[in-house]
Amino acid sequence: MRWVLPDYIQDALPAEAEQLEGLRRGLLDAFRVHGYQLVAPPLLEYLDSLTTGAGQDLKLRTFKLVDQLSGRSMGIRADTTPQVARIDAHLLNRSGVARLCYCGSVLHTLPSTLTATREPLQLGAELYGHAGIEADIEVIRLLAEALSIARVPASRIDIGHVGLFHALAARAGMVPEREEELFDLLQAKDVPTLREFVAGVAEPVRSALLALTELYGDATVLDEAARRLPDEPDIRAALDDLRRLAAALADLPLSFDLGDLRGYHYHSGVVFAAYGNGSPGALALGGRYDRVGQAFGRGRPATGFSLDLRELALRLPDEPRAGAILAPAADEGNDGALAAEVAALRARGEIVMTALPGHEGTWKEAGCDRRLVRRDGRWAVEALLGD
Amino acid sequence: MRWVLPDYIQDALPAEAEQLEGLRRGLLDAFRVHGYQLVAPPLLEYLDSLTTGAGQDLKLRTFKLVDQLSGRSMGIRADTTPQVARIDAHLLNRSGVARLCYCGSVLHTLPSTLTATREPLQLGAELYGHAGIEADIEVIRLLAEALSIARVPASRIDIGHVGLFHALAARAGMVPEREEELFDLLQAKDVPTLREFVAGVAEPVRSALLALTELYGDATVLDEAARRLPDEPDIRAALDDLRRLAAALADLPLSFDLGDLRGYHYHSGVVFAAYGNGSPGALALGGRYDRVGQAFGRGRPATGFSLDLRELALRLPDEPRAGAILAPAADEGNDGALAAEVAALRARGEIVMTALPGHEGTWKEAGCDRRLVRRDGRWAVEALLGD
Repeated sequence: MRWVLPDYIQDALPAEAEQLEGLRRGLLDAFRVHGYQLVAPPLLEYLDSLTTGAGQDLKLRTFKLVDQLSGRSMGIRADTTPQVARIDAHLLNRSGVARLCYCGSVLHTLPSTLTATREPLQLGAELYGHAGIEADIEVIRLLAEALSIARVPASRIDIGHVGLFHALAARAGMVPEREEELFDLLQAKDVPTLREFVAGVAEPVRSALLALTELYGDATVLDEAARRLPDEPDIRAALDDLRRLAAALADLPLSFDLGDLRGYHYHSGVVFAAYGNGSPGALALGGRYDRVGQAFGRGRPATGFSLDLRELALRLPDEPRAGAILAPAADEGNDGALAAEVAALRARGEIVMTALPGHEGTWKEAGCDRRLVRRDGRWAVEALLGD
Repeated sequence: MRWVLPDYIQDALPAEAEQLEGLRRGLLDAFRVHGYQLVAPPLLEYLDSLTTGAGQDLKLRTFKLVDQLSGRSMGIRADTTPQVARIDAHLLNRSGVARLCYCGSVLHTLPSTLTATREPLQLGAELYGHAGIEADIEVIRLLAEALSIARVPASRIDIGHVGLFHALAARAGMVPEREEELFDLLQAKDVPTLREFVAGVAEPVRSALLALTELYGDATVLDEAARRLPDEPDIRAALDDLRRLAAALADLPLSFDLGDLRGYHYHSGVVFAAYGNGSPGALALGGRYDRVGQAFGRGRPATGFSLDLRELALRLPDEPRAGAILAPAADEGNDGALAAEVAALRARGEIVMTALPGHEGTWKEAGCDRRLVRRDGRWAVEALLGD
C-alpha cells in the first residue's frame, strides 16, 4: 500500500484545499490593511537558530536533519514565531514598530493531541517594538476580527498573564529547572501536586501561587487578584495592564484566567486563547514573548498570535461549491466565437472546462453542472443533463 | 551568529513575500477558471510512497527522516507531482478527466544549480486521464497564459518528446541501466561520449540516436525527423502528435528539440520547458508522465507542468509598493468617527496602521507615506511629512 500516509498527516483534497485557500486569503488581506506585512521564513534552518529562545517543548517537536553542505544539524520549523522574531531583530532592523504576518506549514514530530495534525498550516500576526499594553490590545482585536472574517467568530477569549507567574516564581527564589516544573504543574492545573510542590515556599508567595489556579472568570477577578496577590510593583503593573485591556476590549467575550499558562514557554506577559463554534481546543493562541528577541542578541518587545488554518477549516459552516461549465473543444468551425465566449465567462470568475474527446458521461464527476452549447448560431450556457 | 541561514536557503522579506503571494493568487485563480482544482498534499510522506515511480535523481534530492510513531522512513517532498498523481489515482478515483493544481514548498538536499534555492515554492497544474495530445496542448497553452499573467511572458517554449528516445532505446535492446546511462548522455548533450556509447548499436537505430542531438529548431525539424528516424508506428505516432501540437499552438514561440530530455526521469511523452525575460534556466518544466500512476497500481495518463515561484518573482518587473496611512490611536474624544473612517479606508484596500505611543519619527520606516488627521472637525488623509 504505497499510498497510505503516516499517522496524523493528511492530504487536503479539492473541497478542503479551496477552504484553506479562501481562509488564507481572507485573513492575510485583513492583516495587510491593518499594516501587517507578509514575510515567508524558510521551512529549514540550523537547529540552534530555530530553537533559540524557545522552550524544551518546541525542541522536542522539531524534526532534525543533517545538512549535506555544512554537516551541521538543521531542523524543520515546528513554529514560525521565533523565525519571524529573527527577521524583525536582524533583517528588518527597524528602530520603531514592525507589524508582520505569515502563513505556512510547520511540522511536528508528534501530534500535540490525539486529534491534532503533525502538519499544521500556521498563520499568524506579530507586532514588534512596542512594550505597552496597546500592542496586546491591538493584536487581540485583530484576532477577533480575523475569526469573524473566517466565519468562526470567537465565543470566548481567555486572557492570562505569564508575568504574574514569573513574578511569584522569582519571589519564591526558584532555579530555572524548578520554575519550569512549576510552570508545567500550573499549565496542567494539577492542584494536588502543585500543593505539595509549593509546600516549602514561604508566605505570602505560597498562597499566591495556589490562588492563581482559582482566579478565573470575568473582569472582576482582576479586583480579587489585587486582594489575594502580594501588593508589589510588577504584580500591580500586570494587573493594571489587564484592567486597561478589559476596558478597551469590553465588547469582546473576554474571560480571565490568571493561572492559564497556555502556549509555548517563550511567552512572557499577556497570553490569550480564542475558542469558537464548539471547538474543544483553542482555535488560536497568542501572547507576549519579549524574551525571544533577546536570545537573538537584540531584545525587542513582541506580541502576536497564531492559528492552524486546518483546524479553523474544520469549524467552517458547510457551503456548496461552485459548479463548472463544460465547453466543447475548439474546431475549425467555431474557434473565434467560442474562444471569446469562454474567455468572457472565465473573466467573470466562472469555471470553464474544455471537453476532451472520449470522456462523454464523466463530466459531472469532474464538477460540471452546466454546458456551453451553440443554439441558433449563438453560444449559450444551459444545464448539463445526461452527461 | 544564530541568525545565519543554511546555504541556498532564504527568507522572503515583505517586498518579495508580497510578490510571491500575488503570483500565487494570480496563477491559482487562472488555473481555477480553467477547471483545475486545488489540492494540498502533505510535506511529509513515507519514503517509498514519495519516491515511487520517480527516478534516482529525485530520490537523492529527498531529505529523509524517521517517523517516531511507526519507526518507518519518511521523506520531505522534493517534488509535488508524484503526490498529486497519487491523489488522482487513489483518492479522487475518477473514471474520466481530473484537472488538479497545487502550490507549496518542496525541499532539496542539494541545490540543483549554483543559483538555485533548496526550498523552491513549487506551483503546478496537472491533467489526468487523457492520453491524447489534446491534453498536452491544453497544459502548454495554460502555462503560456500563466506566464503572461505573471508578467513574465514566455519568450521561448522548447518542446521535446521522450517517446522518441524510449522507442529507439527499446529497439537497441538495452537493459534499463544502460538506457538510463544513455538518457543521461543525451540529457547532457555529451555527443563524443554518446558516439562511443552507441558504437555497438545496429543501424538504423545508431544513426537515429545520434540524429536526436541534431534535430532542433522550428517545426520543420519534424519533417526532417520523419526522414532521419526509422519509419515505425510509435515513432510515426510521436511525430504526428508533435505536428498536431505545432499546428494548435502556432501562435506561441515554440522551438523543437528532439534530443531534449529535460525534467525528471518519470516523463514519458511530450516534454517542454519555458523561458522568459532573459532567464538563463527554464522558468517552467513539464511533460507527460503516464508511468507514475502505474507505480501506484493504477495507470492513468498524465501531463502537466510546474515552476518555482521564487525564480519567477526574480524575473518580475520592479513595481512600487503601496504606502500606508498612519492613524492616531483611539481616545475618548474621537472613537466613533475615527474608527468609522479607518474601517472605510481599509474596506477600500488602503493599509491603515494605528500609531502606538512613543514611536514618533519612525512611521516612514514602517511604510507610512500619509496620515489621517482631524481638520475642521473632519478626518482627512494628508501627506506624512516630518514624522
